[in-house]
Amino acid sequence: MEVTSSNFKEVLPEIEKVINSSTFLAIDCEFSGLNVVSEINAFDTPKQYYEKVRKNCKEFLVLQYGISAFRFDASEKNFKQQSYNFYIFRRPINNNIPDQRFLCQTSSINFLMSQGFDFNKLFKFGISYLNISEESGYRDKLEERKKFRSNQNNTPQQNQDIVPIPDDVQPVVDDFMKRLSDFLESDDDELELPKCNAFVRRLIYQTTGQKFTNKIVLHTKQNKNKDRILVASKCKTKEEQQEIEKRLFEEELTNLDDFIGFTKVLRIIVESGKLIVGHNMCLDFLHTIDKFLTPLSVNYEEFKDCAHSLFRNVLDTKFMSSSDEFKDLIQSTVLKSVLETVSKTPFAIPPVEVEKGGQGYFVEDLKEHEAGYDAYITGLCFISMWNYLGTLKKLSIEETFKDFALLKPYLNKLFLMMLRDSQYINLEGGDPNPPRDHVFYLTFPKEWKQSNIIELFSPFGGVYVSWINETSAYVGLHKRDQAAVALSTLSQSDTYSIMPFIKRQSQLAGLKTPMASPAPSNRRKRTIENTFKCNKKLKTDKTPLGKMKCPPILEDVEAESDATPKKCPRKEAPKTFVESDAWD
Amino acid sequence: MEVTSSNFKEVLPEIEKVINSSTFLAIDCEFSGLNVVSEINAFDTPKQYYEKVRKNCKEFLVLQYGISAFRFDASEKNFKQQSYNFYIFRRPINNNIPDQRFLCQTSSINFLMSQGFDFNKLFKFGISYLNISEESGYRDKLEERKKFRSNQNNTPQQNQDIVPIPDDVQPVVDDFMKRLSDFLESDDDELELPKCNAFVRRLIYQTTGQKFTNKIVLHTKQNKNKDRILVASKCKTKEEQQEIEKRLFEEELTNLDDFIGFTKVLRIIVESGKLIVGHNMCLDFLHTIDKFLTPLSVNYEEFKDCAHSLFRNVLDTKFMSSSDEFKDLIQSTVLKSVLETVSKTPFAIPPVEVEKGGQGYFVEDLKEHEAGYDAYITGLCFISMWNYLGTLKKLSIEETFKDFALLKPYLNKLFLMMLRDSQYINLEGGDPNPPRDHVFYLTFPKEWKQSNIIELFSPFGGVYVSWINETSAYVGLHKRDQAAVALSTLSQSDTYSIMPFIKRQSQLAGLKTPMASPAPSNRRKRTIENTFKCNKKLKTDKTPLGKMKCPPILEDVEAESDATPKKCPRKEAPKTFVESDAWD
Repeated sequence: MEVTSSNFKEVLPEIEKVINSSTFLAIDCEFSGLNVVSEINAFDTPKQYYEKVRKNCKEFLVLQYGISAFRFDASEKNFKQQSYNFYIFRRPINNNIPDQRFLCQTSSINFLMSQGFDFNKLFKFGISYLNISEESGYRDKLEERKKFRSNQNNTPQQNQDIVPIPDDVQPVVDDFMKRLSDFLESDDDELELPKCNAFVRRLIYQTTGQKFTNKIVLHTKQNKNKDRILVASKCKTKEEQQEIEKRLFEEELTNLDDFIGFTKVLRIIVESGKLIVGHNMCLDFLHTIDKFLTPLSVNYEEFKDCAHSLFRNVLDTKFMSSSDEFKDLIQSTVLKSVLETVSKTPFAIPPVEVEKGGQGYFVEDLKEHEAGYDAYITGLCFISMWNYLGTLKKLSIEETFKDFALLKPYLNKLFLMMLRDSQYINLEGGDPNPPRDHVFYLTFPKEWKQSNIIELFSPFGGVYVSWINETSAYVGLHKRDQAAVALSTLSQSDTYSIMPFIKRQSQLAGLKTPMASPAPSNRRKRTIENTFKCNKKLKTDKTPLGKMKCPPILEDVEAESDATPKKCPRKEAPKTFVESDAWD
Repeated sequence: MEVTSSNFKEVLPEIEKVINSSTFLAIDCEFSGLNVVSEINAFDTPKQYYEKVRKNCKEFLVLQYGISAFRFDASEKNFKQQSYNFYIFRRPINNNIPDQRFLCQTSSINFLMSQGFDFNKLFKFGISYLNISEESGYRDKLEERKKFRSNQNNTPQQNQDIVPIPDDVQPVVDDFMKRLSDFLESDDDELELPKCNAFVRRLIYQTTGQKFTNKIVLHTKQNKNKDRILVASKCKTKEEQQEIEKRLFEEELTNLDDFIGFTKVLRIIVESGKLIVGHNMCLDFLHTIDKFLTPLSVNYEEFKDCAHSLFRNVLDTKFMSSSDEFKDLIQSTVLKSVLETVSKTPFAIPPVEVEKGGQGYFVEDLKEHEAGYDAYITGLCFISMWNYLGTLKKLSIEETFKDFALLKPYLNKLFLMMLRDSQYINLEGGDPNPPRDHVFYLTFPKEWKQSNIIELFSPFGGVYVSWINETSAYVGLHKRDQAAVALSTLSQSDTYSIMPFIKRQSQLAGLKTPMASPAPSNRRKRTIENTFKCNKKLKTDKTPLGKMKCPPILEDVEAESDATPKKCPRKEAPKTFVESDAWD
């Protein structure tokens, strides 16, 4: 089902029911750009990888969010499926939320266009969202304004708040006061004042407070032309005036509830605790948290703790299909190929049908890269692999699909694209730490090309070169046993420098945190506290949705737009990793 | 007329004719975002203003370009008009031009949507463009590739170019070689090889060069699925092979010509030397040069010289309508209001009709903020003001509209929004240098609010505060004659510091160029040389369009995506300048 701002409110209760009765949820996102490929180094650690992808999350938008809910029906021994394809776009709200700037990547836009994506629909009927930091900022501003209005009307203004009126603006202010005074004499209940700029509006508020205390109350609204104008109402008694202000504040809260929009779906998912499945889902997962829940922490360990406290069970089918259990059976882990593979023996996709009265996809729809469809396909791949694990243990279909323990080895591990030695993010523990004794950090004159590096190492067999910038690279020996002799042979040179990978990593860690980092035990303690905060904010708060009172947040919203891609000059070296179009 | 990639080639010859027979051209652009408002300070100098707007030009896109050509018809004593509305978007080209990332501002997108802008059309049928720097980079890559192909086939490869094949990729390469060898035995003329990544393609090129020298030539193309694949052709003789390579190179040049696209229109305009008219055109003008002609120089004087050498006659109707001659007659200089004012006495819009067989707008179309329509409205405002200048001198209509001298005071001056004392960019001389003895640079503790500053200066009358960041601001006294006494009275304090505006400017200049800046005479000399270069590149080169050989360019294209908005923390001070939606 396509969900836009036109039907979102109406469909939300159904979505909540569907989520809560599901066995698992498959998700997929479409973005305004990825741009991660060029910054990732094949020898990045999961932490370094996170830091790069996090930056991308701050710059690009989620344009479409697909959720495919699968429910195992034990009586019919099949899966019921319902899928939703959400168009996500936050139109400018008002002064409570900064006007958003976002990056687009031409290739991503073009790719979506070629798949029939409707940008007009997106920009017109996209569903709004606010993460908890944005919502909290919004609430603060509402409170502030409420206070301002009440001060303005009830107490004489204090001298230091008064902005002097420049001579050239005085006639404009006088004209407005004349209008207000005429309005007071008239029988009208409300007066829309002419358009004026923010500074003049500020002066009108101030002068009205001085001249018409307890007689006129002002508020700002957007007229049909989207201009911000002042509207004046009369107030005869103090009670009446408070009544008006109360009504205004409540209207503003209702608006806020609308702006929270798609975030509600994510909060339902978090509350439900359901298993979330995605294919190559690292980027989707990070964007989900950052855009709809809480800004991604700059601290990697904090991110992991927070993410795991929000989503207890996450499964990446790209990780699963490239794991030892499946890698010999599934040659290509591109989503489309996985589907093809798991549709044939030794796999078998269990029967799936669309839930009665619901809407879903069929494989034949071929709506590749529509988020809802891709989520659905991901779900199919997942249940076929799950089913396979069951058959290995000779379980019946009913036994398999209630046996989440079968999935244990694959849970909470996010596949990381483009890394050399099958790294992943482990959300519930330490990340893998593959031996990299055969990898060196090399610096050299900027005239050097790939061939110079290859030549340098040629006595020790072939190498894999992963450029960092034009004067440095990581170099991995194909023959790992040559590492020690390579290092000792090559370490004396004035032209280049060489050091073991691990030494370079400590160097980098030292550069970034000149203070000694806290001992692991302390660190753990600190992050557990944060997890609790993160939990409290989003999971255990039982006040009605959209009305929760939020504690101060990890980071400033404003700061987000400041995230800059660090330019990484890169030689025209042959790319030794999968190309960007394979990000799926 | 709406112009997209579907009809651009067909319409171009007509556009060229229309431009060359016009009396003047009115232009207007729509952007993916402006975002300049928040960074401009009311006391910026034109140079500082330029530097901020330049940065914005690098980040945002021109989405629509309107050109309205007005031709005065002396025999019919009226204007003939033809207007074009171009959708501008460069879809990803190929590896010769980097995948573009661009910023969007939500409010701009929303604004365009509300005016009926069709983003699907834009992304699908937008016309491509390349500035001279991008074109030159593209040509270099074509030459490089040509050289690579020819080396690959004609000479045995030199050892240092050879990339060793990793063990796990060897079978893949072997499989490709088997296919090529079968292909050589077959009767087929061409063979499309299976999809593979860039690294494997590199290895296939290399191995084919080694194994099938002078027998097989490879090239890369995109298949229907947008995958890059290798295509092999046989070559029986060396001549035949050279023939194939020549054909490929020519095909690539034709493609390049397509990618230059809308840039051709701008080159025609530059060649024509026609008067260009825009309303509040600073941003339009800067984007025009940067996107379609040559990257904007970081050096302000160089920019002015280059811009003036490209466009000898530019007229900003916002500057004109706020000049001394018109400012009492034209109260509001917002485009729509200007049109209203100049439609009535003492103004009169001369008769305008759509050129026979051409397409144009009518005022009643009310397509506000469609670039072509706004360009047309700008043209109308302009001819009404021009007409007014003629009537002041009692000129007949025929005399007026050949009398460009009437326009002299308004030529080549770009209006600058949001500045305090009617500053403008003078493209053909020094910028205005209004006295700012009454302006001070103030630094203070970050707890300070607007009211603290106002209080500080209260003994000297009202002040205008223009925040720089949370601990500094420019402060302008309303009573200019109080400047000296204010400075001497306030200059002793440990809490804040105060210095004259001019002193701060020298400080800033010193900070930016620690070396003494060249004496004015030297500087002039240097920029004249640059102008000549700029001229040579774009104006006096008489080789056919799209085939010009370009000298190296001012700056690296790659660097453009690196321009970052510098965060400028700003207090919640009342905005004392016009709001962003008034940028028209």
